[in-house]
Amino acid sequence: MTPAALDPTDPEGAIKATVDRVSNWGRWGDDDVRGTMNYLDADVRRAAAGLVRTGESFSLSQRFDGDGPQKGWRRRTNPVHTMLDTGTDAVAGIQGFPHGIGGADDVIAMPLQCSTQWDGLGHIFDRGRAWNGRPADQVVTSLGDGVTGIETVAEVIAGRGVLLDVGRAVGEDGELPDGFAITEEHLRATIAAQGPSSEIRRGDIVLVRTGQLTRVRRGLAAGDGWGDYAGGAAPGLSFTTADWLHGSEIAAIATDTWGFEVRPNEFDVAFQPLHQVAIPHIGLFLGEMWDLDALAEACASDGRYDVWLTAAPLPITGAVGSPVNPIAVR
Amino acid sequence: MTPAALDPTDPEGAIKATVDRVSNWGRWGDDDVRGTMNYLDADVRRAAAGLVRTGESFSLSQRFDGDGPQKGWRRRTNPVHTMLDTGTDAVAGIQGFPHGIGGADDVIAMPLQCSTQWDGLGHIFDRGRAWNGRPADQVVTSLGDGVTGIETVAEVIAGRGVLLDVGRAVGEDGELPDGFAITEEHLRATIAAQGPSSEIRRGDIVLVRTGQLTRVRRGLAAGDGWGDYAGGAAPGLSFTTADWLHGSEIAAIATDTWGFEVRPNEFDVAFQPLHQVAIPHIGLFLGEMWDLDALAEACASDGRYDVWLTAAPLPITGAVGSPVNPIAVR
Amino acid sequence: MTPAALDPTDPEGAIKATVDRVSNWGRWGDDDVRGTMNYLDADVRRAAAGLVRTGESFSLSQRFDGDGPQKGWRRRTNPVHTMLDTGTDAVAGIQGFPHGIGGADDVIAMPLQCSTQWDGLGHIFDRGRAWNGRPADQVVTSLGDGVTGIETVAEVIAGRGVLLDVGRAVGEDGELPDGFAITEEHLRATIAAQGPSSEIRRGDIVLVRTGQLTRVRRGLAAGDGWGDYAGGAAPGLSFTTADWLHGSEIAAIATDTWGFEVRPNEFDVAFQPLHQVAIPHIGLFLGEMWDLDALAEACASDGRYDVWLTAAPLPITGAVGSPVNPIAVR
Amino acid sequence: MTPAALDPTDPEGAIKATVDRVSNWGRWGDDDVRGTMNYLDADVRRAAAGLVRTGESFSLSQRFDGDGPQKGWRRRTNPVHTMLDTGTDAVAGIQGFPHGIGGADDVIAMPLQCSTQWDGLGHIFDRGRAWNGRPADQVVTSLGDGVTGIETVAEVIAGRGVLLDVGRAVGEDGELPDGFAITEEHLRATIAAQGPSSEIRRGDIVLVRTGQLTRVRRGLAAGDGWGDYAGGAAPGLSFTTADWLHGSEIAAIATDTWGFEVRPNEFDVAFQPLHQVAIPHIGLFLGEMWDLDALAEACASDGRYDVWLTAAPLPITGAVGSPVNPIAVR
Repeated sequence: MTPAALDPTDPEGAIKATVDRVSNWGRWGDDDVRGTMNYLDADVRRAAAGLVRTGESFSLSQRFDGDGPQKGWRRRTNPVHTMLDTGTDAVAGIQGFPHGIGGADDVIAMPLQCSTQWDGLGHIFDRGRAWNGRPADQVVTSLGDGVTGIETVAEVIAGRGVLLDVGRAVGEDGELPDGFAITEEHLRATIAAQGPSSEIRRGDIVLVRTGQLTRVRRGLAAGDGWGDYAGGAAPGLSFTTADWLHGSEIAAIATDTWGFEVRPNEFDVAFQPLHQVAIPHIGLFLGEMWDLDALAEACASDGRYDVWLTAAPLPITGAVGSPVNPIAVR
Repeated sequence: MTPAALDPTDPEGAIKATVDRVSNWGRWGDDDVRGTMNYLDADVRRAAAGLVRTGESFSLSQRFDGDGPQKGWRRRTNPVHTMLDTGTDAVAGIQGFPHGIGGADDVIAMPLQCSTQWDGLGHIFDRGRAWNGRPADQVVTSLGDGVTGIETVAEVIAGRGVLLDVGRAVGEDGELPDGFAITEEHLRATIAAQGPSSEIRRGDIVLVRTGQLTRVRRGLAAGDGWGDYAGGAAPGLSFTTADWLHGSEIAAIATDTWGFEVRPNEFDVAFQPLHQVAIPHIGLFLGEMWDLDALAEACASDGRYDVWLTAAPLPITGAVGSPVNPIAVR
Repeated sequence: MTPAALDPTDPEGAIKATVDRVSNWGRWGDDDVRGTMNYLDADVRRAAAGLVRTGESFSLSQRFDGDGPQKGWRRRTNPVHTMLDTGTDAVAGIQGFPHGIGGADDVIAMPLQCSTQWDGLGHIFDRGRAWNGRPADQVVTSLGDGVTGIETVAEVIAGRGVLLDVGRAVGEDGELPDGFAITEEHLRATIAAQGPSSEIRRGDIVLVRTGQLTRVRRGLAAGDGWGDYAGGAAPGLSFTTADWLHGSEIAAIATDTWGFEVRPNEFDVAFQPLHQVAIPHIGLFLGEMWDLDALAEACASDGRYDVWLTAAPLPITGAVGSPVNPIAVR
Repeated sequence: MTPAALDPTDPEGAIKATVDRVSNWGRWGDDDVRGTMNYLDADVRRAAAGLVRTGESFSLSQRFDGDGPQKGWRRRTNPVHTMLDTGTDAVAGIQGFPHGIGGADDVIAMPLQCSTQWDGLGHIFDRGRAWNGRPADQVVTSLGDGVTGIETVAEVIAGRGVLLDVGRAVGEDGELPDGFAITEEHLRATIAAQGPSSEIRRGDIVLVRTGQLTRVRRGLAAGDGWGDYAGGAAPGLSFTTADWLHGSEIAAIATDTWGFEVRPNEFDVAFQPLHQVAIPHIGLFLGEMWDLDALAEACASDGRYDVWLTAAPLPITGAVGSPVNPIAVR
């Protein structure tokens, strides 16, 4: 299916037809809570460890910062980090500790989706159903996700990461324009351009660089602020990649954009339709707002695009997502 | 120096004398912000990646949970995780999204030291001085740690982890009693008992299991609650291990206890005196409240105690510590 | 109805029968969002202003403090108050402001029900129905209370307050024991003992002192902590007072206890059954954890038990309750 | 002193000279923690209660809302209100309560200065000194304001409020333009225009309406957003009113603007210089972001500008300010 084949007036029809092709419900049993993370097993990890050659490490995380991109939409704010104790207090002599010790502690309040993060399986529903077909209201209540909370994959997400630098391979000057829909053809073209280290295998964590973050950073440096990085127009995956996401048997996929899929979405009236297929039906973990730029430079310099990647969510009981600092080593 | 050699009435004297022997101030230049993380370089990582044999992975993190051990001391509370959107809302049809998509988002408010965490270099001061000799009031203010914030080591902490299961090697039934001071001799005895995979090398991340968490978990299972896990009596490193911590040139050390060092502390009137040496003077990163039990079982089963370990802090700008989900792969 | 008449095995039956007698659904129209606050009108206020004679003022609020009574049950924690800027920072010269100005700002994170508070009309439901018969899932979602949010009574709650010091009138040494169920007879006996200033009129805000807080404070002073003040056994209103609460046409009622009604509740298996009648059916505003001791002393000293009372909730959009600092002037 | 007399290049000089004239340090003893709230005594309250004639009540509070004016400057964000339990959960049958009761609870995280608020005496310092001459670092630390925390005036702030509708009396169409400095002459002209009910007396709470909020609200209604209401240009009190603020012996003063004083400030390089005099030296309580529009309409309609006003801060231990819902009754 190509974007041209999408009927922009009928997201419901496209979603239903796609779901019929790509659903993984029941694939790992009725009790499954891990979805495509089932692909990421010890064998995958053992093989991936061999990718470490120089030992260089890269953080794929943006900063968790009060000056971040969030604008309060749906109450997604930037983190508020405050201190419980400080060095100024210690020097002022007010801490009351013995033998000259002083200390600083801190507190944070933040949406779990405020910066670099994983979407867990409880993050998105399709017509009232969560991953594996469960009724959404029996999965995620005000008490959190009692079934597929992010803690259920606490130890899993370490394996082979593959950078697909679509911005560099397909875009101009290394960047895709906002609104650019990345199709399966673009993904294949990128793999072809990058060479064999980019071949996608079962259990992989795919990292798609669009270059949007690079562009937004230039704006920040120029004093323009974040613009609409958090929710506005952006390059991203086409709805039509659902079949590839399913058939490739990847464990997860992450982008350098706020919302993973192309925005505006490819239907006249729509909101994140690829999420609606990918999370509750494919059981796929999505990473958003990852910073792939430094890694992309390194990969381009020597043509090796696969890395050992650890992207461990905080095991917050019942969370539908998690902030994460993914570490790539190559 | 042995615990017997400590004068319990003179923590100031012991601290000063120890600092004279172990200070790393200036070792990596006046501008250094990474302390012992300087030991953890690409070479260390490259070698450590070879430790992955089966691909088994272990999360060394406790849950971030409202029912955690914190009791509010110094305003350290358990995390409060709340939902911005839920599955019950989605099913109730009140979310207003098109084409049947529904979603759940969440928020957390927590001290950065509430559960499994890293102490950053701005966490502890000695007589008004922070790491590398900087005046503490020019490092950590209400705005956070403007110099050694945890984000400065965002990409570093992946390398060789070595479990020293002191509880198993030295304790009874795998556990050290509360108040047990682990000395250098105990560390060496553990290494000897465990065999060559436990040899400590420059740049290592040392994981000390005391067994206290195992014991506390039994209490939890029996309905006794957390007791005083968060701040009460505990086994832990003796103040006298400062020289070993310095001389071993390790990058970091973590324990399964709240406070790393033995409690009650080994002086008549004291509060975490080993912190006062280790963090501002050695520049050592300390991990606390790590869950080492599952890894310890695996290590004991085949006698391999070294692992590939990634323990990436969230790069919260200016934070003096960070929650972390450390992942060991072996 | 007396407590003796309650069948402890049948809370459902008692609730249904009581609801049939006391429901105010529709009384103020289908669109009503204020319940019994409709009684508190300008006429009531005008008359009540005449109660001010000496001009003495009393805060009926407990402190909002990290050392408060909450223990985390249902994620009700004590407030966490942190600073964004401090005097120590100002003196350390790190704030960067001109002409010698320095400042301090602060932040709070707290459950709205953590200390002295109002229960709003969205706080409790009966078999899926909120105040005035609305389906609860169309009133209070993750977005808050979209219909009866506490902001809808932002300007209303100023009028006549009447202290019923049941602890003094009925108890021993001014206190009722935990588990003591205050019946209509006890309320009438208290009014009779206190004299005509205690007569209850339409639109009144009734303040019921049990003396439990006085007792808990003694425990705090003795180092015993809060005990089970937040949710444990307590004196409080009997379920059988529902008819009096309805027939008296009061605007609101508050107690010095955590939970307004007697605990343990008067049925074998129950949770706050009087709430289930009072809030969704009578439309009554309940105040909890009020501090009535200082006012009680003053009232006892001169026999005047009615005051001018302002108890203004913070108009937090969509809140189902609010912290409040009620001010009595007499 | 008039604005013309101010040397715009010398805020330090102007501040020092003004402080020499208006300081109240020591006026109420060395231990004083209430500043001008000392003026608001029982006599003032007793007299003010007589102002209630119709019993109409007005909330002078803006909503505490996630869509508020804050933009994150100095980490002042809008409140984040989340639910611990909801009606959708109750209807979904997942709450686990007996006999059909369901409930909703909520949580808030907010800066204390995010919306309608009081500045407490610990909010501003002058050259390292807080109210009454205390060293700021011995008053406000990371632990909060240990001396003049807002809880120290928990019961005080009920008395006579006087609306000075400067926007209506002096402005065009009821509004002063941004940057308009309100001088003592403007205050006197407003009093004269409004008549004898506006006469200012010792212990009064003065309410200055500039009309800026009215203007901003039109913008909001037109879809323009809040603009720079939180910190941008605004009408407000001239620095030169310091003498009037002192000599009038008022207890407090509040405006409908973010920052009380005119912005931009009246010096070339300055930040809130009138705060620097008013809070630490006069000991004056400042109210900001109050909503005076509805009250102003009522006052204009019958020419009575004085009201019974209760503006009770939440007694948050150690807070340097507090959100407040002021209630005027007339």
